[in-house]
Amino acid sequence: MDAEPEPHVVRKDGSPRATPISIPAFTGYMPLTLDQAAQRLARYDEVRRVLGEDPAAWTVREVGDGNLNFVYIVTGPQGSVCAKQALPYLRLVGESWPLPLSRAVFEHAALLRQAHDAATVPAVIVFDPDQALIVMENLSGHVIWRGALIERQRHDTAAPVLGQFCAESLFRSSDLALEPAVKKREQAGFAGNTALCRISEDLIFTDPYTDHPQNAVTPGMEGAVAEMRADRDWRTAIQEWKWAFLSHAEAMLHGDLHTGSVMVTPPGPDERVRVIDPEFAFYGPMGFDLGATLANLWLNAAAQPGWGAGWQDQQSWVLQQTTRFMAAFRARFSELWHSERTGEAMVDRVIGDASDEALGAMLTRIERDALGFAGAKMTRRIVGLAGVAALRTIPERELQLACETRALRMAGHLVKEASHLKTVDAATTMAQELFNA
Amino acid sequence: MDAEPEPHVVRKDGSPRATPISIPAFTGYMPLTLDQAAQRLARYDEVRRVLGEDPAAWTVREVGDGNLNFVYIVTGPQGSVCAKQALPYLRLVGESWPLPLSRAVFEHAALLRQAHDAATVPAVIVFDPDQALIVMENLSGHVIWRGALIERQRHDTAAPVLGQFCAESLFRSSDLALEPAVKKREQAGFAGNTALCRISEDLIFTDPYTDHPQNAVTPGMEGAVAEMRADRDWRTAIQEWKWAFLSHAEAMLHGDLHTGSVMVTPPGPDERVRVIDPEFAFYGPMGFDLGATLANLWLNAAAQPGWGAGWQDQQSWVLQQTTRFMAAFRARFSELWHSERTGEAMVDRVIGDASDEALGAMLTRIERDALGFAGAKMTRRIVGLAGVAALRTIPERELQLACETRALRMAGHLVKEASHLKTVDAATTMAQELFNA
Repeated sequence: MDAEPEPHVVRKDGSPRATPISIPAFTGYMPLTLDQAAQRLARYDEVRRVLGEDPAAWTVREVGDGNLNFVYIVTGPQGSVCAKQALPYLRLVGESWPLPLSRAVFEHAALLRQAHDAATVPAVIVFDPDQALIVMENLSGHVIWRGALIERQRHDTAAPVLGQFCAESLFRSSDLALEPAVKKREQAGFAGNTALCRISEDLIFTDPYTDHPQNAVTPGMEGAVAEMRADRDWRTAIQEWKWAFLSHAEAMLHGDLHTGSVMVTPPGPDERVRVIDPEFAFYGPMGFDLGATLANLWLNAAAQPGWGAGWQDQQSWVLQQTTRFMAAFRARFSELWHSERTGEAMVDRVIGDASDEALGAMLTRIERDALGFAGAKMTRRIVGLAGVAALRTIPERELQLACETRALRMAGHLVKEASHLKTVDAATTMAQELFNA
Repeated sequence: MDAEPEPHVVRKDGSPRATPISIPAFTGYMPLTLDQAAQRLARYDEVRRVLGEDPAAWTVREVGDGNLNFVYIVTGPQGSVCAKQALPYLRLVGESWPLPLSRAVFEHAALLRQAHDAATVPAVIVFDPDQALIVMENLSGHVIWRGALIERQRHDTAAPVLGQFCAESLFRSSDLALEPAVKKREQAGFAGNTALCRISEDLIFTDPYTDHPQNAVTPGMEGAVAEMRADRDWRTAIQEWKWAFLSHAEAMLHGDLHTGSVMVTPPGPDERVRVIDPEFAFYGPMGFDLGATLANLWLNAAAQPGWGAGWQDQQSWVLQQTTRFMAAFRARFSELWHSERTGEAMVDRVIGDASDEALGAMLTRIERDALGFAGAKMTRRIVGLAGVAALRTIPERELQLACETRALRMAGHLVKEASHLKTVDAATTMAQELFNA
């Protein structure tokens, strides 16, 4: 009777329709142990086609994304793949912190939806939902950008490509591009990823502001942290950002887009930039992914004085990347505004000749949100669980404390004064002053 | 394997758990015609228990909610019920405008969730999902508040009770009250109500600003409407409100809370106030329901000069109701903030002694949104499909045009300047000046 047509996700760029998200029963789920990995992966035709037919000729190496999953690189005579399997608990903490296997379903769904965006994500070779297993393209020759940044490598295309990636993945999953019925179906599908959302809700917006046992505060930072927790404006502001994170379902977010979720080939004219690990994907505020990227760059810049000679020059380069990232986002978002605005938000038949004003207002709002979320992410990496390596491993304690204190000050300004600061350029100017002390 | 517990909706007030929303196949759906209604309704034990066992002794009367559904009042020797069945098209327009039967499922889900809020909704007696049929308490002795307002009846409790109702239904469905996983499940369940959301998206935020054939502009209003459509700020602002409507999933909205969705018994010390027809329910911005109520009161106030002697006094009473409505909302929302804040937004362990500031900031934001959405709803009722009776039926054309023009001017201020106006009190002061011309 009810003739509601099944909505599909269709994009103007012609990328494939995304299938609706459905959580399997995980029947027969078995952890993929190192010794069984080759044998079990050989059951998939697609894997044998990439690696070669005989699993006895394959080598399997476990790589530590470590925090959440089993991740193996499997190499055969013909090629290599990356196999990632969710475990029913948070690996970093242990079986005492259960975590649903469904996150593999959301990661797979996000990979499909991001497949045609800049900074392309790994291609999916096999998805076995019941095993919570994704076998994907192995990004051989790539390293994690966070590590490369700590080694002071300079990937000049990383920031702009990530800015484009954010523009594309956010714009194309929002009401700017999708029919409302399709967007609501997508949003509802990703709404099941609550366990991973809850990690972000707690670790970013709540725990650092309380005396939570999972926090990890560098000895000597207690005073600065106590000052933060005594700051009423900071505490109310962070919970307002949490409100937006919980309820502003604007676009499909990567959800964990720090520099550790970015892979790069060696710097130079042929350098490539890829985005991995979207298992935190859900519908949230557009500024969140942008803020996560900015936060990690600002944290790296804050840490530079701890890493010896030449730090001013490197810090200056890193800070430039924040403004280049935002400029690339704005430029690509503006292009999409003119070429792929096929949804029911900001429709031309209403905004008409005021299109540029409407675009400007939206970009202003997204950039403001990005600043606030950047501050939230910075705080979390200084005070909370899973601190950022660039700061945590500074060899000299005094220098480390100075860098962390400055970074935390910057974070406070961002969380409390995003509306006043308005732009990444202004925030970066502030960072230049704060981090050079 | 995946030990995700099924989240339930539990409220601190002890109201029953709400079942997850599930859309049936509508197998065997048959329109409930007047001549068959008694016979078919007699199949339900619960209906016979209310009306008496013998359907031959029942009388059936069709009542015109008319726009979307079949609605019958069935009276038997023992009592009466109201039977409401969705039709697979928009009744107001005809079979050319199909509309899914699923809206009955969302209406039923909303009725269950609002069952313990102030201005209580009708009690459900039978819900037959496959028939898209809700048999509910008959609100005998009640009339639609919109009509009572046009007749200049004064229900002194209506506005404050509605303010309390909004506070309770919005607060209790939001992240302030619900666990994030429960709220996301609720939001995902209501995300299926896209067809009815689309009606609001088009009729409120888009069509009035275009030369759409469904608009209904009073002859003589063409100039004022053309001026509105030439106003770039108005056009971009209305699409920004649409963005919030599309993506800010803060709470379960009634979705169509105008004075026509409110029923009242005769004014006086025993007057009762009920809210009906939540078939547009979905997760959206809290300010929307508030704005819908405010809009209808301001429209009624704007129309008063068209209805003869004594209009100043009546207008003044109606305008008072807007500030009383908002004050009641703020008061009840504040009470709930202190007594039912069991969710993960604005948690005490972070905001602590800054709780009042956080509450104030949230109320300020909700009130600002209410003003913008009120302007959007006013415009729609002046320019778009389904104009408001209080204005459309003013006997003298000149007076009608004057009233409609003033109301449209007010709407423009609200849509464009909500952030500047800030409060319902300020907007009501503006209304007093504009509507007295």
